[in-house]
Amino acid sequence: MKIIVDAMGGDYAPQAVIEGVVQAVREWDLQVILVGDEEKIKFLLNKYRYPKEKIQFYPATEVIGMSESPALSVKKKRDSSIVVGLEMLKQGKGDAFFSAGNTGAVVCASALILDCLESIERPGIAIHIPTLKEKSILIDVGANIDPKPIHLLHYAIMAKAYFETVLNKNNPSIGLLNIGEEESKGTELMRHTYQLLSESNVNFLGNIEGKDLFSGKCDIIICDGFVGNIALKISESMLEFARSLLKKSLMNNPLGFLGWGLMSLTSGRTKHQVDYTEYGGALLLGINGVVIIGHGRSNPKAIKNAIRVAQQEVTRQVNTKILNAIRNNYEKK
Amino acid sequence: MKIIVDAMGGDYAPQAVIEGVVQAVREWDLQVILVGDEEKIKFLLNKYRYPKEKIQFYPATEVIGMSESPALSVKKKRDSSIVVGLEMLKQGKGDAFFSAGNTGAVVCASALILDCLESIERPGIAIHIPTLKEKSILIDVGANIDPKPIHLLHYAIMAKAYFETVLNKNNPSIGLLNIGEEESKGTELMRHTYQLLSESNVNFLGNIEGKDLFSGKCDIIICDGFVGNIALKISESMLEFARSLLKKSLMNNPLGFLGWGLMSLTSGRTKHQVDYTEYGGALLLGINGVVIIGHGRSNPKAIKNAIRVAQQEVTRQVNTKILNAIRNNYEKK
Repeated sequence: MKIIVDAMGGDYAPQAVIEGVVQAVREWDLQVILVGDEEKIKFLLNKYRYPKEKIQFYPATEVIGMSESPALSVKKKRDSSIVVGLEMLKQGKGDAFFSAGNTGAVVCASALILDCLESIERPGIAIHIPTLKEKSILIDVGANIDPKPIHLLHYAIMAKAYFETVLNKNNPSIGLLNIGEEESKGTELMRHTYQLLSESNVNFLGNIEGKDLFSGKCDIIICDGFVGNIALKISESMLEFARSLLKKSLMNNPLGFLGWGLMSLTSGRTKHQVDYTEYGGALLLGINGVVIIGHGRSNPKAIKNAIRVAQQEVTRQVNTKILNAIRNNYEKK
Repeated sequence: MKIIVDAMGGDYAPQAVIEGVVQAVREWDLQVILVGDEEKIKFLLNKYRYPKEKIQFYPATEVIGMSESPALSVKKKRDSSIVVGLEMLKQGKGDAFFSAGNTGAVVCASALILDCLESIERPGIAIHIPTLKEKSILIDVGANIDPKPIHLLHYAIMAKAYFETVLNKNNPSIGLLNIGEEESKGTELMRHTYQLLSESNVNFLGNIEGKDLFSGKCDIIICDGFVGNIALKISESMLEFARSLLKKSLMNNPLGFLGWGLMSLTSGRTKHQVDYTEYGGALLLGINGVVIIGHGRSNPKAIKNAIRVAQQEVTRQVNTKILNAIRNNYEKK
């Protein structure tokens, strides 16, 4: 298997990307094609020992910055690592593409270059979230900020196919992120989506509220990309906020200081459970190809784990399962 | 000053409401009219010592349940504590109304019975949120789930007037909750609102992302009611989630167990900072009258503090300031 990796994407690229790729090829049976500034990449790679035959290179002279306009930059920077990498995936030079770069640009270029899967109008970004029970999947966290009800139904069907195939749980439960549990709650988009989900063959539990996002009440949570993006960013910052407040409070008191120290020593598992680097990559579902998106702040561990996510999605043939699931949903009607 | 209080509103009503009211009249120079099941209220009040002349009663035979449809219930239950209480406020029998009952019903009945302030089309719910710096105000958290840009501009002007009048800080900074900092980010609603805020005379800092909600980056955060409601509920549950994860992790280890104990003993201040009961009431801004909404889970302390919030809003004449601010904004153009 060959994973095409955007060497230039992410706040700590190319250093963090290269380090993560080296760890991945050392550990797993896969090859990587690094796309970007070849000279720089080779210079940085020189520091590491790794099986040489497992890393190849492909030049791309441009880089799309983290805050550039997605549509414009994809159109103008035809020799950027994102556009070049996705063109390579389209041409069959690799099995999946990974980038920790400008998320909007990856979504936009993927839709333009690879197109959506049959019957799917818009891709959605799915992420793993930790809960008090098992892991859940939240989709969409920002690919589609003005979705139609049918897009949200397709997100449910796609996330179900992923869940069953990769996470090995049949008939996962599905909730719609809304402002109340009753069917009549929320915007027109929410009410119409509720109806579509009820009539589909997914295991739809109904609406869930913000307070249930991390309760593990359902396996898959569907939301519109605008809300999902804000929800995700609040959640990430909230843990840091809670930690800062707690630390500030405990440091004022000798016993609290000791408590903080003991806690910091022993709370490895919590960190593990809520650490995005453990999951590494978000899935861009609905694209005719396997595309994984990394967090802008990805460190080498996150990069390595994102490559594993890409590998799983290819091996388990998630896109074939998604196509079958979409067809099934319409045939049953 | 007289505060009209819905004795039947909230998960722990009427017990928690009565206890909170008793604490409020003992502590502050104000009178309360309790609206609801008079017999039950008087029976429960009998347990407490309080200055008798400071609590009056007004009967209402119906109660709007926490999950009833707001519009329908307000229309049908004309003798509910919410409708009766708001009618009393309109008739000048009190200076403010407080309820910890069905939020949607309070918003709907307030708009119907009291009407909006001049030039304001839709009310918004503002809450205090804790941040790493000072307190911030988040508006709207659910009164208006499908707002127009002009509604969000008015929320900014109203929250500014409140901030200057009650929180004593001039020219508070204002941010728009969006999915990116650039002006071009987000939905049509967000882009149009960005423009209106830029052209207004508020101190608009630009878009802020979910990760900055609790950073204290700005004094007032404007958002649409759907997003605000979900953001609020995620934040509330997130602290509980972080606590549960941490506890689970620490309990597996004797040192961690000790750390947890010391931490629990000494983290009073954190609890204080993030405890909604400290703030008590959300402000329903834009209504021609002072209406305060309590959390459904309000305990006596939250009820007492909500009454203080109502008192402040009346004393400082927030609505007069809002009317002036709205007029000013249009005159300056």
